[in-house]
Amino acid sequence: MTRIGLLHPGAMGASVGAAASGNGHTVLWASQGRSAATQERARRGALRDVATVPEVLASSEILLSICPPHAAEDVAAEAAECGFAGLYVDCNAVAPERTRGIQRIVENGGAEYIDGGIIGGPAWTREAETQMYLSGPRAEEVSACFVDSPLSAPVISERIGAASALKMGYAAFTKGSTALLTAILGMVEKEGVRIDLSRQWGDAFTAQTVRRVCDNTGKAWRFEGEMYEIAATFHAAGLPGGFHQAAAEVFRRLAGFKDYGSAPDIETVLAALLKRE
Amino acid sequence: MTRIGLLHPGAMGASVGAAASGNGHTVLWASQGRSAATQERARRGALRDVATVPEVLASSEILLSICPPHAAEDVAAEAAECGFAGLYVDCNAVAPERTRGIQRIVENGGAEYIDGGIIGGPAWTREAETQMYLSGPRAEEVSACFVDSPLSAPVISERIGAASALKMGYAAFTKGSTALLTAILGMVEKEGVRIDLSRQWGDAFTAQTVRRVCDNTGKAWRFEGEMYEIAATFHAAGLPGGFHQAAAEVFRRLAGFKDYGSAPDIETVLAALLKRE
Repeated sequence: MTRIGLLHPGAMGASVGAAASGNGHTVLWASQGRSAATQERARRGALRDVATVPEVLASSEILLSICPPHAAEDVAAEAAECGFAGLYVDCNAVAPERTRGIQRIVENGGAEYIDGGIIGGPAWTREAETQMYLSGPRAEEVSACFVDSPLSAPVISERIGAASALKMGYAAFTKGSTALLTAILGMVEKEGVRIDLSRQWGDAFTAQTVRRVCDNTGKAWRFEGEMYEIAATFHAAGLPGGFHQAAAEVFRRLAGFKDYGSAPDIETVLAALLKRE
Repeated sequence: MTRIGLLHPGAMGASVGAAASGNGHTVLWASQGRSAATQERARRGALRDVATVPEVLASSEILLSICPPHAAEDVAAEAAECGFAGLYVDCNAVAPERTRGIQRIVENGGAEYIDGGIIGGPAWTREAETQMYLSGPRAEEVSACFVDSPLSAPVISERIGAASALKMGYAAFTKGSTALLTAILGMVEKEGVRIDLSRQWGDAFTAQTVRRVCDNTGKAWRFEGEMYEIAATFHAAGLPGGFHQAAAEVFRRLAGFKDYGSAPDIETVLAALLKRE
């Protein structure tokens, strides 16, 4: 039985915690200042509320950081300041270079670092096929907590950065090609040949593309930052970062659909993309 | 019966000429200074050799420019200088703004301009499903030459630029996503997680992607310029051009595979992409 702390869990984090608590581990979180929706998710995941972050840090052997990616360094600094000295797992979508920066913060506080990268949606069921890839010298100890759980947590390397690179590589195509298709639809709309490209593409590919573009708009607000992480990852590998710099700009223009409710129709999406009034 | 001139036909151009000659039109070309392979293709397409470009220009009612895209303006200038005053069709993969520039050159010489964009491979058979999209006030006259031929030549608009925009939009995904996948394989190779991404992708998608990346390297040398045209098209539509700026850089690094013979294996491709010795 391991005591696992979960810092700032959202929809994904709560499901990861649930996978560990389902295996009999004690999963701690801090409800202070969190929303009713988060509290409901924590109940669903059988997480144990210890009220405050310092209390989570004081009581955990393993700490999982699954937070909005822009906050990854702040969460690490909080752990280091509290002197957390267990295993710190950063599961966020950040570039390998950035994960090594977070490693330095965490190790200054006395903890050991494990790199993580999650691919897929919330891991409430096995059918979601969610993967939490891990890399680092002691990654097996974290992986062991999720054996036979709905979350698959394979160790891919002892190297910090490997898990993040894998996450970046996977998202580079799924989200990058969605952004590319969005931009293409914008261009042909602007040039007055959208109907002609649809005919050339054929009904099936066109319908699938339009659905994919529209369905992604609700998440665009949080994709912008991830696209910059991927661009940085390409750049560090000596490859051009322009694909995902452009993808970031596409998602930035669609960020306003965050609270739109349902998926907007394609005309509405393209109007936002092309900044029409 | 229309006399159609074909300037600087390569593999694509000869097949387009063949589609018209098969309909009973006289298709003229100039063999002067052209290779034996080109002369063989011209024979296959039943093109009539009138030896020199000025002779083609003097004898044609419709002129088709299907040439290496970087030469599109030079071919137009040659036609204008010779006073060609028929219908000039630029079929090359250029941005809408650039096609309007070529239009000005051609109209200065007294000709009327038609915009064209070819999607697909050489049009020797109907099964190739090659499309030569046309736009411009007199585009129907060109389209009529290809009725029921192996080449489909639909008119999509009266606007110069529409056919080019459609071609750009289609190639933006086919070639852009190939470049993106190439760069992704390079990044995960550099980061040591290519095997892990292959597992996450699954065997089918991985094999298909590797094949696509390797098979495209032989054409990379001529894709670089087309990627800049697409980037310019996006930019002119108020959209980010970074996707295809990056794609141009990827194809530039693979240009050396032009005369490689067969498709290289993925290790060889990635070594070139990552500029390894």
